[in-house]
Amino acid sequence: MNQFNLGMIGGGTVGSGVFHALQQNSALLTARIGVGIAIRKVAVKAFDEPRPYPITEKLMTLNWRDVVEDPEIHIVTELVGGTGIAKTMILAALERGKAVVTANKALISAHGPELFAAARKHNTSLYFEASVAGGIPIIKVLRESMVGNRIDRIDGIVNGTCNYILTRMKREGAAFADVLADAQRLGYAEADPTLDVDGHDAAHKIGILASLAHGFWVDHHDIHVEGIRSLTPLDIRFAAQLGYTIKLLGMVRMAPPASGKKNSGPRISVSVSPTLVPDGHVLASVNDVFNAVFVSGSPIGDTLYYGRGAGKDATASAILSDIADAALDRKHGTPQRVPPFVAHARDGKVIPYAETRSRFYLRLNVLDRAGVIAKISAIISKAGLSLSSIVQPEGHEGETVPLILMTHIAQRAAMDKAVTAISKLPAVKGPSLLLPVEDFG
Amino acid sequence: MNQFNLGMIGGGTVGSGVFHALQQNSALLTARIGVGIAIRKVAVKAFDEPRPYPITEKLMTLNWRDVVEDPEIHIVTELVGGTGIAKTMILAALERGKAVVTANKALISAHGPELFAAARKHNTSLYFEASVAGGIPIIKVLRESMVGNRIDRIDGIVNGTCNYILTRMKREGAAFADVLADAQRLGYAEADPTLDVDGHDAAHKIGILASLAHGFWVDHHDIHVEGIRSLTPLDIRFAAQLGYTIKLLGMVRMAPPASGKKNSGPRISVSVSPTLVPDGHVLASVNDVFNAVFVSGSPIGDTLYYGRGAGKDATASAILSDIADAALDRKHGTPQRVPPFVAHARDGKVIPYAETRSRFYLRLNVLDRAGVIAKISAIISKAGLSLSSIVQPEGHEGETVPLILMTHIAQRAAMDKAVTAISKLPAVKGPSLLLPVEDFG
Repeated sequence: MNQFNLGMIGGGTVGSGVFHALQQNSALLTARIGVGIAIRKVAVKAFDEPRPYPITEKLMTLNWRDVVEDPEIHIVTELVGGTGIAKTMILAALERGKAVVTANKALISAHGPELFAAARKHNTSLYFEASVAGGIPIIKVLRESMVGNRIDRIDGIVNGTCNYILTRMKREGAAFADVLADAQRLGYAEADPTLDVDGHDAAHKIGILASLAHGFWVDHHDIHVEGIRSLTPLDIRFAAQLGYTIKLLGMVRMAPPASGKKNSGPRISVSVSPTLVPDGHVLASVNDVFNAVFVSGSPIGDTLYYGRGAGKDATASAILSDIADAALDRKHGTPQRVPPFVAHARDGKVIPYAETRSRFYLRLNVLDRAGVIAKISAIISKAGLSLSSIVQPEGHEGETVPLILMTHIAQRAAMDKAVTAISKLPAVKGPSLLLPVEDFG
Repeated sequence: MNQFNLGMIGGGTVGSGVFHALQQNSALLTARIGVGIAIRKVAVKAFDEPRPYPITEKLMTLNWRDVVEDPEIHIVTELVGGTGIAKTMILAALERGKAVVTANKALISAHGPELFAAARKHNTSLYFEASVAGGIPIIKVLRESMVGNRIDRIDGIVNGTCNYILTRMKREGAAFADVLADAQRLGYAEADPTLDVDGHDAAHKIGILASLAHGFWVDHHDIHVEGIRSLTPLDIRFAAQLGYTIKLLGMVRMAPPASGKKNSGPRISVSVSPTLVPDGHVLASVNDVFNAVFVSGSPIGDTLYYGRGAGKDATASAILSDIADAALDRKHGTPQRVPPFVAHARDGKVIPYAETRSRFYLRLNVLDRAGVIAKISAIISKAGLSLSSIVQPEGHEGETVPLILMTHIAQRAAMDKAVTAISKLPAVKGPSLLLPVEDFG
């Protein structure tokens, strides 16, 4: 039987989770794939770094180069994260012909093509199932199981921190800042929550999925990103009254071909935004730290993949499946059997967010006086937009009251223009909130 | 670029779906996998057999041997179904070293190991992603993405016909027979619905999943199977009042090791039964013809895979992914890279259904008189069982009235014995219904 040696870089939460999972299940894994996996070295930040599972002391080293330079190591896991030293580590391992397995979404998002090229050049490969949605095998599903499908849309709840916060805001009617503080205390949010709550982490992930689905690498600067900081308990409640749940969605859509241009490659939109999801849709029931990715394609139709999107254990499952693939690819000498990325539509393009179309939810604060709604309606109608409903919720007293508008499908540019004009009305006070509404029609 | 020729056997609903999908997406498929797929022959029952998409006339033949005997054909799809001639077709193709792709759950369930051995012997492989849950890539997920996991439980809604009927019974309060008749009229149920509504189709599928997860081939005679015929609108309503939705679940559970025996291999239970699922659980929201498979493992935790479980288009997606894998395996000369089945636990065992444990729902018809509940409770308590609730729903008048008992966790054998004793009470009339309750705790 073949046996391959594994070197790990990173022995913190995720690293020790992988170590533990391999200890628990390596006999099972070996029996299933017919290849043995032996952990040879684990590079850690500090021997006594806090970690949920212990790592065998004699395997630990403080120098990551001990791992990538060990000629007996065939497969390297990079579980350090970030776009700095992690890139150097991965390139150093690839250059030595080692297979690399990573969970690093930020790095893949920013430097994927460069890393993939290095892997190809050195006749090895880079595996990143764990980089998107933790334990959910969405990379393999998109790349292999849906290989015969045109991918029409992807809607992903791919940030567990945001989903946890939104779930509690809805259940408890609580404010964003309060739930965030609690999430930080419980370890569900980082001390600096920016990457999560401002949508950047979700953008890394949805950009990777968009790239795999559409065959050109999506530059993360082309992704429109909005986080969940500006959501209020009122928005959550108003959405609920209208039959919707607000989720932070990463969204990929096919856009119509550019007019006048034939065969100009796929045009897609890629965005991250809090979005109103109908309560009857499966995504609305995805709660707490769970992730889910809804993918609709042709011929497959609607599909959904659900599981834990982060954490030491779920991530370890994805890492182990990549290690198994790396081991089989090495055994058979087929490192690029399923390449990390196939650029099958180099001429693809991400359209500007202003050109996207959807229904909208607009929450305004207006002075409680006659004629205000008429003025707002006039602006909406002059912009060529049409409303599906206007709600002035009861129970609000004071100088200003909330006003909720729901539109039919409109272009974002026209909607933004109308909101700017509405905001200039003397009767409209304070910040407004504009969110897309998805009916999955 | 490599190109492989495809021969198809079966040009009806699913066959024409595959033909159509390949016509639509073969350029995309080829761009993604770097291998061309050309359809060379399609064996059909009749040239003018009704089919949803047309098949190019000059490719059609009435003789399936034209397909398996064509030396230029590398990959064969068997989309005929059943356990008769289909087996001969597949063996004939495998014997000639061709890769075979099938959607035939009944055949795989009954003769999987024999077919897999034939594939191995002839240095080729057999692919059957489409045999379970249509477009949902559950075979690849279990076999590859979850390869590093111990599989603790599987709960699958894997029969679209039953799920459609149960969904409508719940929505409309309608009777089984009426919805079945309507489903037959709409083409969601066969003229002879036995295979679906009596649970046999679900048993084929859950048996395949159990085998892949646990590493020994599950004999379908060891699967306890109950269908949905005996469900009444009352049961659906009572379950709803208690916070549950009744779904036909295929279930796989790990059983505790046999006492006194060490290392005796995995012991599992495999069953198909209408089951009470809590309304808050994702499986309860899987409606209409959709399928979903809930898999819980270690380290991955809870996961769910959702999509269309049947139909020409969803099935075509699974067939295309298998064709892609077959083509890559052929290109690289690695037909058994991921074998159809790995018997990694030959000493595994399916325990008798009587030994399984769960909570139970028991619906009785009792004479509406004093002392009946006391007598029933006495039997329950004497059997060592305990009740979590007793409901005598209001609004029922007549000689007999329904009585609903919900138990705590109990062994099936004890429960069956108690039900037999209860049924003998003079005050208990007509058929009772005993269903498992799953709380996913």
